[in-house]
Amino acid sequence: MVKILCQQNSILNQYIAEIRDEKIQQDSLRFRRNLERIGEYFAIRISEHLVYDPREIITSLGVAEVPVLVEYPVLATILRAGLPLHQGLLNVFDKSENAFISAYRKYHKDGRFSIQIEYSSSPDVEGKVLIMTDAMLATGASMVLAYKEMLQRGKPLHTHLIAVLASSEGVEFIRRNLSNTEVTLWVGAVDEELTAQAYIVPGLGDAGDLAYGKKI
Amino acid sequence: MVKILCQQNSILNQYIAEIRDEKIQQDSLRFRRNLERIGEYFAIRISEHLVYDPREIITSLGVAEVPVLVEYPVLATILRAGLPLHQGLLNVFDKSENAFISAYRKYHKDGRFSIQIEYSSSPDVEGKVLIMTDAMLATGASMVLAYKEMLQRGKPLHTHLIAVLASSEGVEFIRRNLSNTEVTLWVGAVDEELTAQAYIVPGLGDAGDLAYGKKI
Amino acid sequence: MVKILCQQNSILNQYIAEIRDEKIQQDSLRFRRNLERIGEYFAIRISEHLVYDPREIITSLGVAEVPVLVEYPVLATILRAGLPLHQGLLNVFDKSENAFISAYRKYHKDGRFSIQIEYSSSPDVEGKVLIMTDAMLATGASMVLAYKEMLQRGKPLHTHLIAVLASSEGVEFIRRNLSNTEVTLWVGAVDEELTAQAYIVPGLGDAGDLAYGKKI
Amino acid sequence: MVKILCQQNSILNQYIAEIRDEKIQQDSLRFRRNLERIGEYFAIRISEHLVYDPREIITSLGVAEVPVLVEYPVLATILRAGLPLHQGLLNVFDKSENAFISAYRKYHKDGRFSIQIEYSSSPDVEGKVLIMTDAMLATGASMVLAYKEMLQRGKPLHTHLIAVLASSEGVEFIRRNLSNTEVTLWVGAVDEELTAQAYIVPGLGDAGDLAYGKKI
Repeated sequence: MVKILCQQNSILNQYIAEIRDEKIQQDSLRFRRNLERIGEYFAIRISEHLVYDPREIITSLGVAEVPVLVEYPVLATILRAGLPLHQGLLNVFDKSENAFISAYRKYHKDGRFSIQIEYSSSPDVEGKVLIMTDAMLATGASMVLAYKEMLQRGKPLHTHLIAVLASSEGVEFIRRNLSNTEVTLWVGAVDEELTAQAYIVPGLGDAGDLAYGKKI
Repeated sequence: MVKILCQQNSILNQYIAEIRDEKIQQDSLRFRRNLERIGEYFAIRISEHLVYDPREIITSLGVAEVPVLVEYPVLATILRAGLPLHQGLLNVFDKSENAFISAYRKYHKDGRFSIQIEYSSSPDVEGKVLIMTDAMLATGASMVLAYKEMLQRGKPLHTHLIAVLASSEGVEFIRRNLSNTEVTLWVGAVDEELTAQAYIVPGLGDAGDLAYGKKI
Repeated sequence: MVKILCQQNSILNQYIAEIRDEKIQQDSLRFRRNLERIGEYFAIRISEHLVYDPREIITSLGVAEVPVLVEYPVLATILRAGLPLHQGLLNVFDKSENAFISAYRKYHKDGRFSIQIEYSSSPDVEGKVLIMTDAMLATGASMVLAYKEMLQRGKPLHTHLIAVLASSEGVEFIRRNLSNTEVTLWVGAVDEELTAQAYIVPGLGDAGDLAYGKKI
Repeated sequence: MVKILCQQNSILNQYIAEIRDEKIQQDSLRFRRNLERIGEYFAIRISEHLVYDPREIITSLGVAEVPVLVEYPVLATILRAGLPLHQGLLNVFDKSENAFISAYRKYHKDGRFSIQIEYSSSPDVEGKVLIMTDAMLATGASMVLAYKEMLQRGKPLHTHLIAVLASSEGVEFIRRNLSNTEVTLWVGAVDEELTAQAYIVPGLGDAGDLAYGKKI
């Protein structure tokens, strides 16, 4: 299932406008803060689909029955662009366990590239809800590869994949490769074009560079 | 109109459970952080009811049409218990103007009290959306008085009143005194009892004391 | 004793440059964040003058002797411009009790004004270290009045007064009215001029308006 | 040069006490927040050693001469335990470029291990000040290896290495392998013992697990 959140009115759209804007994104503090707030927004929306159980809470004046989260989801992110988003999710789900994965593009002589997993640190995810974030869903190959890497740590109950911006091609790639029962894909907005270099257009440029500086 | 947010599954209920819990609330950092997160949650939900307009955003790779907030709401809060909540709203609506109001209970010889406005600092609110927060809605008298104080700074287009916990009596008081076209009341949860000293039961105790320490 | 922190190299000066800059201060998120970071800076510097006592801490692998804060200082602030600064102090001293005070300028027919206390909420400060913040120290009258208001809640062991920017006249006013044994004044920078309307020049304008919007 | 910050009275010691305490560290929100605050503390102390230049700042009322940071340091961190510390540094130095490195212990058949670099993403550091953080300095091997990895991105002007807790053996290892002119080592506290499994005693346990959950 694919959920495209920009279709509903909310402050999310304001943040997406700001991270796309080539002037506003020059302020890397605000750029990271916007990704963090977008992460909080996704977390809150996904929190509506988790399982809660009524618990008797002892207050200083009596007893209240309040539903509490039965189990916190595991939060996974793809380095480095996913980190500010992940911070937003962790702001909301402060008791969650966390996973960090890095995938990189290995360029071949013919100019094409394949995605490879480099670093991966994760808790057991067997039977747990997993939320995995990346800033951009371009071809979709990194997300699928990172998800499959996570499966080596157990079979999640259900996985929520998050990307702020996606290309329609990337969304299609997820649809073809992962089943609805297995994953829900949450995206902020979907852009039509994907360049040969796998840049989303109009997109926002390179989210990692804008958050953390150009790497060499 | 009254919106009771605990009726829907979301992480909000987890935060409400924690601020009510007499053990967890001993950690004032977490207590304030929970109020702040509750403020962010209310802000996001209210943001779905604001007005957005498509704007052409120039990205580094093209042009994207994204809806942006036409006008930020004015954020008002009632001191001091409302401050952490207000911080949460300002985290979401970072370009908002802000108002601060203090109301206090003036005790009479017979043990009864009336509410009086003490401090009030506010921008012009004429024709703007106003969001006013207080931690608790006990009798409802402070909220109505603070709202009326705000009307001296202009007539808002619409006002959203927020309280984390409310007594049913307080909700009823708002209903009787303010019209649906004028205000929407958003509450986290509604408790049945209100003591003679105007404490909500089971409630959570004194939100201001828990966030900032007992005052003398 | 007066401590002027800009005289030493540190990131504080970068923040002061940003809050003074009429272009950068247009971003109220960054303006508030800079005041908050300045508050954290002052808090850390003042923390070097508090009392610590070695405590045996049980770790998962052994026992460590670590000095801990014997008593958290009480944090007081002057509304509304002091709030972002106060947030910075509370970030550092998360277990502190808090006081909020509002003072306003009451204008007389002849154009002159006197300062009056309006709102005041405070814990007992008897025998405790008190830290009181305001964004600007213009004439110094509000700070002295707010300090005297605090004395009604007990006699502090020692008081640290903080202002980001001060006029030399304001510093002089504190020196004349409060003794060294009683208070230490910490300021970010001292500007020479104070206009007839009590604006610090070159200063930064109205800190309250820049953080929270113009009030009417 | 080695700087051991716990030797001076400051709030840093309170945070170190809390992250060591096996009860308090059960709250992972507070544990991460303490590491973040420790990162801010280190950042502020290191900021006293950076280069500032007076700049004329145009305020709304005049011109102020204020020293500003000539160049922001590059912030590097070792995954995953270094991330909350790094967040603290980035809170202070918001315009910095960032590097992320992962090093892991590759265990050999005889139970010994060697440290290997896995993931590394970094800007050019030629001629720049570099600040590199890790939560713990156990044997010192990861820190030295990560530092040498950074040298492949250019020769820094000077490097500040940060660890919250260090073993005396780790400190000695840095001293032997890196020169004073090249690096300054900043540590919160130094513990005497290092177990055969390279755990610092009394230490605090596994900082990565405490911040992000046990990995498998």
